[in-house]
Amino acid sequence: MSTGLERLPFVQLLGMELEAIEEGRAVGSLEMRDELTSNPATGIAHGAVPYALADTVGGAAAFTVAESVTPTIDMRIDYVNPPIADVFEATAEVLRGGNTVATVDVVVENESEVIATARGTYKVSGASGTSPWLGRDDTE
Amino acid sequence: MSTGLERLPFVQLLGMELEAIEEGRAVGSLEMRDELTSNPATGIAHGAVPYALADTVGGAAAFTVAESVTPTIDMRIDYVNPPIADVFEATAEVLRGGNTVATVDVVVENESEVIATARGTYKVSGASGTSPWLGRDDTE
Amino acid sequence: MSTGLERLPFVQLLGMELEAIEEGRAVGSLEMRDELTSNPATGIAHGAVPYALADTVGGAAAFTVAESVTPTIDMRIDYVNPPIADVFEATAEVLRGGNTVATVDVVVENESEVIATARGTYKVSGASGTSPWLGRDDTE
Amino acid sequence: MSTGLERLPFVQLLGMELEAIEEGRAVGSLEMRDELTSNPATGIAHGAVPYALADTVGGAAAFTVAESVTPTIDMRIDYVNPPIADVFEATAEVLRGGNTVATVDVVVENESEVIATARGTYKVSGASGTSPWLGRDDTE
Repeated sequence: MSTGLERLPFVQLLGMELEAIEEGRAVGSLEMRDELTSNPATGIAHGAVPYALADTVGGAAAFTVAESVTPTIDMRIDYVNPPIADVFEATAEVLRGGNTVATVDVVVENESEVIATARGTYKVSGASGTSPWLGRDDTE
Repeated sequence: MSTGLERLPFVQLLGMELEAIEEGRAVGSLEMRDELTSNPATGIAHGAVPYALADTVGGAAAFTVAESVTPTIDMRIDYVNPPIADVFEATAEVLRGGNTVATVDVVVENESEVIATARGTYKVSGASGTSPWLGRDDTE
Repeated sequence: MSTGLERLPFVQLLGMELEAIEEGRAVGSLEMRDELTSNPATGIAHGAVPYALADTVGGAAAFTVAESVTPTIDMRIDYVNPPIADVFEATAEVLRGGNTVATVDVVVENESEVIATARGTYKVSGASGTSPWLGRDDTE
Repeated sequence: MSTGLERLPFVQLLGMELEAIEEGRAVGSLEMRDELTSNPATGIAHGAVPYALADTVGGAAAFTVAESVTPTIDMRIDYVNPPIADVFEATAEVLRGGNTVATVDVVVENESEVIATARGTYKVSGASGTSPWLGRDDTE
């Protein structure tokens, strides 16, 4: 991917990667490591880890239907199974791509089951400036 | 604080600190640094940073009314101002402290205004095992 | 259906009907009429109408995995298309059926598209008393 | 109030009234009656009743900062005490009044305590047409 998303500092800190992006849809992943746990003995990720992946991949999906930047307005996450994985994978789909906001659904999975589902509203117009992650590439 | 919360790996990675905890209420903080931004030029935190603080401090507040561990069941965050700060501070209050779940309200602020508000539901009973962060202290 | 759900006063007032119920899943419908609109000229339902259907059908799905009553703890609804329909249909599925809470996903549709999606957390144990809608049948 | 809100069919069906409205804030009420319960014996309102009041009063608050109509994009409600009241009262405040969306916080109370809290995102620009409830007055 050449979106520049992976060069964002926090995306790098957590080790998130964008696997695929197309109109209305994005897929990303995050490899687990002890630093991201709440308890290294159990390997359970801190709840903010699947959230970070969901928010990031959801924003990438929203970007595909946006004029420019896509700040998150709100997001809800539901944890449905213990967040344990070697690699978390998140798939985001735009449910509603209006002229001002997009509603995005995200599913976060481990190797065998759904870990969390998230739903967020992103601003897709009316924002000033360039995209936080795709912007740099535009000038290259 | 001697809760052990600050020894959790992900809490350490982000640099979250628990400032105060009492029955039904907790306060925590997080010092910003470039690694936590989406764009170091603007200093804007990735949206998952205030979320991480809200979820962590909300869990600490839920813990004060819980029998044992307090996994997050769901959380919604609303971003109301750009997440820029030297230090983010989150204050969590238990709105509903039932026998099975607690509803917690969290406000995340920078030095001058509210950045985000979050509301989460935490499991406060029926969980097995010891708390991920207070547990260790119990055996000391 | 013999669940008694349709005898609940508010369910009758809105005209909600339970179409199907099985382990972890429920389907219900609501026929539109002018009284349920925000604007009879456009036929647009008040936003609380698809919410009422989502909450009710979601509670029915949660009930199938519950010990007794299933009060709603929280619910989020996202409106993705204008709420116009002759008949709204809602399908609810249990995403997480734990021993204390259930997480339920609901999709509300009209004849051709998704109108709203909702996700709720319901209490499935620890409640006292009998079910508000299945209870009566138990004594018959 | 001369907003026309109370003439909306669904608002009339439930008996919701607007008590006060000013820049960024609205207050409304709803008198309970058996038709609005899930169980007339207990007097417990169906969960969609406080939701309907929260959504309606929240929309009125959003309208005060909007260019035109304010459709709800999403709303989360948390039920914190049993919804029993003679009269429910909801107070809505705009937390974020941007140029495209408004974030609104609503508290629903009975005579002695908080029953539910809700947080919603409303569209405040980019909409076509006139307000569903204030529009008529504009032409009078």
